[in-house]
Amino acid sequence: MKVIRVLLVGLGNLGRRFCDLIANKGPELEARYGLCLLLVGVADSRGCASDPTGLNPARIAATKRLGKSVGDLPDVGRPGQPAADLIAQTDADLLCEASPVNLSQGAEPGLTHVRMALERGMHVVTPNKGPLVLAYRKLHDLAARRGVQLRFDGTVAGGLPALYIGQRDLRGATVYRIEAVPNLCTGYVLELLADGLSWDEAQARAREEGVLEADPSFDLEGWDAAAKLVILVNGVMNFPARLEDVDRTGITGLSGADVVAARRQGRVYKLLATTDRRPDGSVIMRVAPTPLPGDHFLAHLGRKQMGVVYHTDIYGTIMAAIDEPTPLPSAATMLRDILDIYI
Amino acid sequence: MKVIRVLLVGLGNLGRRFCDLIANKGPELEARYGLCLLLVGVADSRGCASDPTGLNPARIAATKRLGKSVGDLPDVGRPGQPAADLIAQTDADLLCEASPVNLSQGAEPGLTHVRMALERGMHVVTPNKGPLVLAYRKLHDLAARRGVQLRFDGTVAGGLPALYIGQRDLRGATVYRIEAVPNLCTGYVLELLADGLSWDEAQARAREEGVLEADPSFDLEGWDAAAKLVILVNGVMNFPARLEDVDRTGITGLSGADVVAARRQGRVYKLLATTDRRPDGSVIMRVAPTPLPGDHFLAHLGRKQMGVVYHTDIYGTIMAAIDEPTPLPSAATMLRDILDIYI
Repeated sequence: MKVIRVLLVGLGNLGRRFCDLIANKGPELEARYGLCLLLVGVADSRGCASDPTGLNPARIAATKRLGKSVGDLPDVGRPGQPAADLIAQTDADLLCEASPVNLSQGAEPGLTHVRMALERGMHVVTPNKGPLVLAYRKLHDLAARRGVQLRFDGTVAGGLPALYIGQRDLRGATVYRIEAVPNLCTGYVLELLADGLSWDEAQARAREEGVLEADPSFDLEGWDAAAKLVILVNGVMNFPARLEDVDRTGITGLSGADVVAARRQGRVYKLLATTDRRPDGSVIMRVAPTPLPGDHFLAHLGRKQMGVVYHTDIYGTIMAAIDEPTPLPSAATMLRDILDIYI
Repeated sequence: MKVIRVLLVGLGNLGRRFCDLIANKGPELEARYGLCLLLVGVADSRGCASDPTGLNPARIAATKRLGKSVGDLPDVGRPGQPAADLIAQTDADLLCEASPVNLSQGAEPGLTHVRMALERGMHVVTPNKGPLVLAYRKLHDLAARRGVQLRFDGTVAGGLPALYIGQRDLRGATVYRIEAVPNLCTGYVLELLADGLSWDEAQARAREEGVLEADPSFDLEGWDAAAKLVILVNGVMNFPARLEDVDRTGITGLSGADVVAARRQGRVYKLLATTDRRPDGSVIMRVAPTPLPGDHFLAHLGRKQMGVVYHTDIYGTIMAAIDEPTPLPSAATMLRDILDIYI
């Protein structure tokens, strides 16, 4: 039995579900893989908790569902302690960094967390796009220097293993074009618009469903899709793409009438992220609402689905999609990444 | 630079294309991965050729395209030598076994080739379903005992990394249902029938396109799909499924009128392979022509496409498909497998 001491920073939608996962899957992971995930420290925005003999993940999840901070937990909690201190002071094998994405403020505090953990010789697993978008190469170089792994499957298209397929299963190929619908929220809103709902109604419904964040502009203006495209291009095309090089248009300029009219003509609007490799090896990156013809693979994506298409020289065209009715698959990418490191 | 001495047995559709691949991709593989694939021996049904300093893969492919045996090549050829002798006598790191699938005769000679190579301490890469269907567990045990790798991504759904996705990216999950359209030929014929062609016309067209084998019953009667399902269930569900446990119906009992009528009702006939996990851990396996509703992921597959759907407990529903206009992606799975072993 191999015990892996895990730090978890960020206890929002994904962090909480990850706690549920290791609580529920613990015995199965031990039986199938001989691995025991021991949660030795957790942090939310208001404090930390730690216990070298292991926190109870179900209790952590329950605490958060009650709206409390883990800093207030008796015995193990330290209210007000920043996550960075937890990372600096706790002995652990691996950091799960699930703090909120923050592209506008230098990807902090996630970037600092990831960097600190790698410096300290921990593996890092993160669904947080920010650090990867802003420092893809530097973080990989740091991980290589420290002899640890950096995994981030959850940064692109939720629980779809888009990155693993692109990075591993397409080895040996030239990927000359990628098309993706990597953002769930915009697909959901566009479907509602196509059904004839107004923008206000569609946004309200998406918010009720938990699909739309309080500040929806990150999704609706295409920043999320652009960030994912940058990670795909770095990871799969091995090209140092930057966010500022993405030609980005969100969906807010579309009217409901546009979307309805497209459907009548057999076309389906999606916020499409595409990249094409130029003959000189550089790439063109674009995010824009696009009326896909009905026979396009990505036109068939349902309301809570995301997908990616890889056009390759030797593996044909490979397409993958996920139906993700809840954020569980996105949270489970942290488990996938951990198992990929240790098995 | 790591030199990998490769034996290639079977120089049909896939073996020839694999020779092209290593001829064309050689410099790229060296530059990107530091790997040199040295073809030290090849075999077809009429003879062998070998050279410890490396055969020219482009010359091997050209020889086969002229209808000749590699056994007749000057200097390096040995007409009439069986492949088993080549495997027994040649020092190599890895065997690519691409001889024809032969389920009815104990998967021979492929099974013997795979077994011999593993016994001799070679890694084995094979798109040949036969040995895996008939001896999945035994071959894995043998590989483990000898400390070598056995890879067979090309056995299921051509160039689609269906097995890698199922075995690696779904780790930690329970896969409770698999649906697949793993056979290209039947999808092609069913599409032509739906377009109104007669059975004779559809078969003739498929044969012209190289999609239908001389003896089409292996595909049309569902044996190929059943074999692939057995490998999927062994590999992804970790259950010792057997070919004789598949409830198998081919497409030859369908009339063109059935298929056309289904399309008029918005349904699409596919030769669907499904498996469901029972509560006791055992599985139900079925291959049958199935009129899929228009919104089913696999209903959208085009003429030369194959696909798979994994229903999981924690990663949602993950769907993948490939568009494979030529057999190149199927041949390239051998390269994918080799890179997966060595990188």
